[in-house]
Amino acid sequence: MASESEAQRALQYEQTLMYGRYTQDLGSFAKDEAARLRLQEGDAPQPRRPSELLEYTQGRCAPCRVCALQCQRFLISKVGEDWVFLILLGLVMALVSWAMDFAIATCLQAQKWMYGGLDTNVLLQYMAWVTYPTVLITFSAGFTQILAPQAVGSGIPEMKTILRGVVLKEYLTLKTFVAKVIGLTCALGSGMPLGKEGPFVHIASMCAALLSRFLSLFGGFYENEARNIEMLAAACAVGVGCCFAAPIGGVLFSIEVTSTFFAVRNYWRGFFAATFSAFIFRVLAVWNKDEETITALFKTRFRLDFPFDLQELPAFAVIGIASGFGGALFVYLNRKIVQFMRRQKTINRFLMKKRLLFPALVTLIISTLTFPPGFGQFMAGQLTQKDTLVTLFDNQTWAKQGINDEFEYLGILEAWLHPRSNVFVTLVVFILMKFWMSALATTIPVPCGAFMPVFVIGAAFGRLVGESMAAWFPDGIHTDSNIYRIVPGGYAVVGAAALSGAVTHTVSTAVIVFELTGQISHILPVMIAVILANAVAQSLQPSLYDSIIRIKKLPYLPELGWGHHEKYNVRVEDIMVRDIRYVTLNCKYRDLQQVLHSTKMKNLPLVESAESMILLGSIERSQVGALLSSQLSPQRRLLALRQKVLSEDGHRLSDSSIRFQISTETSSGTPARPALRKPLKPALKRVPSSPADSPPAGSTDHTGIALKSLFCANAATEPTEAQSTASHKAKRVRMSIVEEMILGDKMTPTEVLEWEEQQLDQLVDFSSAKIDPAPFQLVEHTSLHKTHTIFSLLGLDHAFVTSIGRLVGMVSLKELRKAIEGSLTGKGVKVRPPLASFRDSTASTTEAETTALRQLWDRHQHHHMPREAGPGGDDDDNTPKGQ
Amino acid sequence: MASESEAQRALQYEQTLMYGRYTQDLGSFAKDEAARLRLQEGDAPQPRRPSELLEYTQGRCAPCRVCALQCQRFLISKVGEDWVFLILLGLVMALVSWAMDFAIATCLQAQKWMYGGLDTNVLLQYMAWVTYPTVLITFSAGFTQILAPQAVGSGIPEMKTILRGVVLKEYLTLKTFVAKVIGLTCALGSGMPLGKEGPFVHIASMCAALLSRFLSLFGGFYENEARNIEMLAAACAVGVGCCFAAPIGGVLFSIEVTSTFFAVRNYWRGFFAATFSAFIFRVLAVWNKDEETITALFKTRFRLDFPFDLQELPAFAVIGIASGFGGALFVYLNRKIVQFMRRQKTINRFLMKKRLLFPALVTLIISTLTFPPGFGQFMAGQLTQKDTLVTLFDNQTWAKQGINDEFEYLGILEAWLHPRSNVFVTLVVFILMKFWMSALATTIPVPCGAFMPVFVIGAAFGRLVGESMAAWFPDGIHTDSNIYRIVPGGYAVVGAAALSGAVTHTVSTAVIVFELTGQISHILPVMIAVILANAVAQSLQPSLYDSIIRIKKLPYLPELGWGHHEKYNVRVEDIMVRDIRYVTLNCKYRDLQQVLHSTKMKNLPLVESAESMILLGSIERSQVGALLSSQLSPQRRLLALRQKVLSEDGHRLSDSSIRFQISTETSSGTPARPALRKPLKPALKRVPSSPADSPPAGSTDHTGIALKSLFCANAATEPTEAQSTASHKAKRVRMSIVEEMILGDKMTPTEVLEWEEQQLDQLVDFSSAKIDPAPFQLVEHTSLHKTHTIFSLLGLDHAFVTSIGRLVGMVSLKELRKAIEGSLTGKGVKVRPPLASFRDSTASTTEAETTALRQLWDRHQHHHMPREAGPGGDDDDNTPKGQ
Repeated sequence: MASESEAQRALQYEQTLMYGRYTQDLGSFAKDEAARLRLQEGDAPQPRRPSELLEYTQGRCAPCRVCALQCQRFLISKVGEDWVFLILLGLVMALVSWAMDFAIATCLQAQKWMYGGLDTNVLLQYMAWVTYPTVLITFSAGFTQILAPQAVGSGIPEMKTILRGVVLKEYLTLKTFVAKVIGLTCALGSGMPLGKEGPFVHIASMCAALLSRFLSLFGGFYENEARNIEMLAAACAVGVGCCFAAPIGGVLFSIEVTSTFFAVRNYWRGFFAATFSAFIFRVLAVWNKDEETITALFKTRFRLDFPFDLQELPAFAVIGIASGFGGALFVYLNRKIVQFMRRQKTINRFLMKKRLLFPALVTLIISTLTFPPGFGQFMAGQLTQKDTLVTLFDNQTWAKQGINDEFEYLGILEAWLHPRSNVFVTLVVFILMKFWMSALATTIPVPCGAFMPVFVIGAAFGRLVGESMAAWFPDGIHTDSNIYRIVPGGYAVVGAAALSGAVTHTVSTAVIVFELTGQISHILPVMIAVILANAVAQSLQPSLYDSIIRIKKLPYLPELGWGHHEKYNVRVEDIMVRDIRYVTLNCKYRDLQQVLHSTKMKNLPLVESAESMILLGSIERSQVGALLSSQLSPQRRLLALRQKVLSEDGHRLSDSSIRFQISTETSSGTPARPALRKPLKPALKRVPSSPADSPPAGSTDHTGIALKSLFCANAATEPTEAQSTASHKAKRVRMSIVEEMILGDKMTPTEVLEWEEQQLDQLVDFSSAKIDPAPFQLVEHTSLHKTHTIFSLLGLDHAFVTSIGRLVGMVSLKELRKAIEGSLTGKGVKVRPPLASFRDSTASTTEAETTALRQLWDRHQHHHMPREAGPGGDDDDNTPKGQ
Repeated sequence: MASESEAQRALQYEQTLMYGRYTQDLGSFAKDEAARLRLQEGDAPQPRRPSELLEYTQGRCAPCRVCALQCQRFLISKVGEDWVFLILLGLVMALVSWAMDFAIATCLQAQKWMYGGLDTNVLLQYMAWVTYPTVLITFSAGFTQILAPQAVGSGIPEMKTILRGVVLKEYLTLKTFVAKVIGLTCALGSGMPLGKEGPFVHIASMCAALLSRFLSLFGGFYENEARNIEMLAAACAVGVGCCFAAPIGGVLFSIEVTSTFFAVRNYWRGFFAATFSAFIFRVLAVWNKDEETITALFKTRFRLDFPFDLQELPAFAVIGIASGFGGALFVYLNRKIVQFMRRQKTINRFLMKKRLLFPALVTLIISTLTFPPGFGQFMAGQLTQKDTLVTLFDNQTWAKQGINDEFEYLGILEAWLHPRSNVFVTLVVFILMKFWMSALATTIPVPCGAFMPVFVIGAAFGRLVGESMAAWFPDGIHTDSNIYRIVPGGYAVVGAAALSGAVTHTVSTAVIVFELTGQISHILPVMIAVILANAVAQSLQPSLYDSIIRIKKLPYLPELGWGHHEKYNVRVEDIMVRDIRYVTLNCKYRDLQQVLHSTKMKNLPLVESAESMILLGSIERSQVGALLSSQLSPQRRLLALRQKVLSEDGHRLSDSSIRFQISTETSSGTPARPALRKPLKPALKRVPSSPADSPPAGSTDHTGIALKSLFCANAATEPTEAQSTASHKAKRVRMSIVEEMILGDKMTPTEVLEWEEQQLDQLVDFSSAKIDPAPFQLVEHTSLHKTHTIFSLLGLDHAFVTSIGRLVGMVSLKELRKAIEGSLTGKGVKVRPPLASFRDSTASTTEAETTALRQLWDRHQHHHMPREAGPGGDDDDNTPKGQ
């Protein structure tokens, strides 16, 4: 039914607002919801005994549940909790990561083997080289498309949104987990320039969600939502940590990438889980005899005593700045490719029809270009991503004196050597080709990240600069007695950190490279380059993840940039929406209808009265809809009819129904049994519950104008008689079946209309609605800067602006976003002149407040003076002198 | 005057509440304050032209100010802002750090030189060894005591409090800066086991505060308070960063130690400034020819290929766990020493009299024990802290086969060698002695930290374990062909990180050791040990800084521990104070007086009326006091008297005074000219402004009961006539001078009393009071966990509990603290039974809300129904059926 679809829509995209929403505890909310659903499901087949059903169910279940819960509680208290969860999470993710690495390595080995085995025929070789990745990518794309389209892409943007408090449907399910793991393995096994970091953040989060759902079978604490968010944050750290065996970098990177505000008390969770995960991940490698002991993933062996000279620092700074531009360009290119693909209708329609054609095509192009006997020979095409990185971080100088001195005996380093070209050309070609290839490949709809490709490109760029320096200063720069040659590998490390930092807008890539290489000797060059790269990139483009968030139109709040000081001058009163719709405590159902027609706001403020405008709380749009539909429900109409007929024994009926109502108050949004629609508590005497209230009843099934107009709020139909009798046959027919099953008597359309008009004129009974009793409030003078802080701290999506209790406006994410982006680009929002706050602070501030107070006072005098004059002649000469 | 001291007290300890307080913008508040002060100061000498003074001042200043501001703005826009500030901060701090290190090294060198030069006579040697540090410490203690007692101690606890939004007076001034720098240099120069890390955090913060004050001469943006807090957070990172040349560790450590919630957007600030600072700090060393190039501070040279075996991990875990216990013990010992010193009245009184005796005594004991020819020979007494660390991180194995193999030629390593003992004994003695010495020395009232001493002890403990392992497995544990010996230096690194992590409850000490040693190869052992140490220490004791916060009784909020899941079951309604005093909008001055008498709350809620209890805002206690005192001020009494006399030309007077009043509304807290006390806006007609209001006047100076009882709110005096005429001569005399200067006519005491009684019965006029129009609200069902999060997020110190607009209670930091500590220790707070939330979620929640709604409704019906029945017969059958 319509009301259900409304409710579903609300659930799909529900703002859970970890801290911002103070309605009922979410636990009890969930319980109410569950009760509602149980009622719905349980009642549909057996509509007898409506008034006793619930009590009976509770009675039967209660002892079992208490017993089970006590057992669970005992288990939990024995096993401990947080650390058990974190260890399990770390263990599972380490296993997943190791297994995937193993599978990917096998896939790549297979390709190499095929390519090597067919070295008699270049065409066959080419076929094998090209077909293999195409098949894998196509399979990956198809598999994820079929199983769970949510698994496509990085996952970090979505996690950022989820950690902000938005519930994205189907993002943390088992299906998505399976799709992501298998899809990612295939995608990376193809040898395309794709990364595993972003997807691992997503995989770890899904793993945490599934694990907590699994563990909640044993203990109730895993049901707490705030706790789950904390665990998700830890899971993100685990994802990065076990992907790179970099626990510290993982924690920091995940914080930078997913959070705007970070609770330090969650810090240890991330460290604990990521460390454990990285430990197991590396221990597996030791057990598998890949390594002798636990070491870094891409171990370097630069000299310790003199890592770099002070005079090399400008070169490192150049790497940083260039990486900043490069990173911004990468983000721009990536976005443009996506937007181009979307805009080209003809291509798009064609590709949409054959969903797998685009991935296959891209793979074909890229693998053709990297074909080692072809163009690939100029760009080290036969190296896998891992091999590339190992060679780039190599300890030796490639371009020492001549070019070809030491290359012959160096195994995979050979790939960088081309007989008719030198290593600089190879590096430049590699960088240029990989740049657009990576930007293109990351738009393929498979699970994939962009971190690792960017990291490799950065390393190559750093290597290029390093080799140039080494060629320029063959004996190093240092002027003292000792000769310290330049270490191009160190430049590669710096470049990798700088470019990946620029693309992701993070500083912690510095820590990641230290952990990846196992050496921290280049800390200062790395930090300087990363900071410069960030400074440049952040002033040019959003981060890759924010760019994806915008492309995907996820709800977001832009960051305040590097010291845009105008924000300190913009205030809430400049950006707030003043003309908002509200619900008053003493409004009629007709007013509710009007409000729903006139606004699309998800949360409506509830004020005391239109004159006082004192904000009492906020009420969700769906709740208002539910109130209205329950008031106009055919069941209720029927009840009125019946009550009229059975007016003599009406009292008996209402007695039993009241007892039942207590536990089903929140079910007002769903069509329920007639008895359920009765007014609620005996204490609440407002709503007509005696037969005298009900209007004269007729007899036809007519769903009514009000209901229709409620759920077609945007259709702007006026509830006139002409329309009402004509246009809604389908719904009417559907409803009529339900109704006729239950009731036998009917009303004429005119009577129905009449009845509905009467119903709409009744005062609204809010007692069955869920009201958020403490919505977040700001005042007009709050600065944009502070508002941004509060919104991102509390994960709000709207806040009401009040002035001494009076509602004066509202700010939502949209306005805030507009204001921030407006003030960044200099348009859109009215930026107050710089001195405005100086000029009007004395006068207007106090004036506004005084006016508000006066109004309150005036109102007060009116209300209370007549009644409170009693307690003595105290207020002798204080009567107001007029309005 | 009394009201001034009240205001001062409020300012001294004012909660600025970065995000929680939405009154006026702080800028305009500051401006109002300034205007108030200017008025006070400017008016006192020249009491003429009261009504034109302000306008004239504004007129003269305005163009200059606008011009100056535009110039500043131009400068700022040219120079940029944040990064300039951060670079300056980093530069200054690097210079300070380097200069201090240089001075300290010189001091220590001098001691060594003296000690070495006097080697002919042991007694002279002893005198020199003991006198030198005693003099330095005594000077340091005396100097800080005289110049700025705030400089004593670490500074991290205070910074944590300041970053929480509390203003601690005099903590960030130039005087304190000077005292801290010089005091710290002397203290560390003495060779006592003291650290420089904590003080450096404080020094950097002061430096940032001074710098921003200095730069605000050029630009207005430095005046923004939110910005200053962000800069202070960055400064903390700089402090740690330039102390250890550890930018990443510095940022992380400062975050862990000072924040509960961290804004990721401030992250780059810390990194930028700390990196720059560390860079300059190390570059200075290179320029000074101390180093050849930029390297780590305590560079280690462990082998890279096989840093440790997997089977050594249990030993590292043992170090971690033992360090956890050791760290907790250190914190406990430190606190007990402080408490013992405070409790011992006789000692205390003696030491208080001679403030410098305690430091001298402690120094004497410690330096006697470390005297190298004496007991010091068993604990490497002649080594400075830095030398100790260098030797402990040494690459070699001390206890390889025998003991004395390689020691002869190793310079400072010699200190660990004792001819008649072995290195294990020396290490054990060192650890035990240094442990209590450090705990004792850090209680000396000089600027000093505990991080470095603890770090050294941890390193020694790690070395001990490492040497034991090396003795146990002389050829290493690894069973393969290669022999990898055990590296005791690695154990020392692990031990240092673990113990300092345990004492400070941080994980980032791991990063600090990597940056300090320049090697990251032991990352997993370090991480494991640090996490285990934290787990143990956090479950036993608060962190050292939290312990000091409690000792010093700074406002704090305890952390939620490692997964104490009871917090999810405690709710605000269980811990809130229900019986709170409030101010109603229509209350009388007598009610204000009563409220001030009956409560000590700093912020009083302002509700609409006692029946509705709708929360409109909150008002500070001092504001209420100001309202009351202005109502009863002798000036006002005089005015009433005068007005009665001049009743014919009263209109002229009130006209001029109203014009003046507009810009001085907020000055109500200070006694001002009679004309100022007139009712405010023409629009506000409530307060008696016509001569008819004033009571019959008499003639004597009597300050009145009300004023007295207001400022002696805790004395619980009843304003009876007997008391009023007797006891307050001093104040009366002081006031009488003021009064008699202005007025000539007098009232009799009886008349004064009568007049005051009449004044108290008037309705309060709130228009001159500063009201916080949106105090923070919670609802009853908010969990303790969520409440804690919100309090620490927003830096609140109290929140009102509301239920659909109605005030039902209040939670302050105190209740929250009690609840958290209560639920930790299992007493104090009523912890809800585990299943309570399951049982009563359906019934009680909705019941409470329904009741609240019903009350609102009932009230509403009363107010509006009679007046709103007009607009048609809509509400046909909806009249309430009774209360």
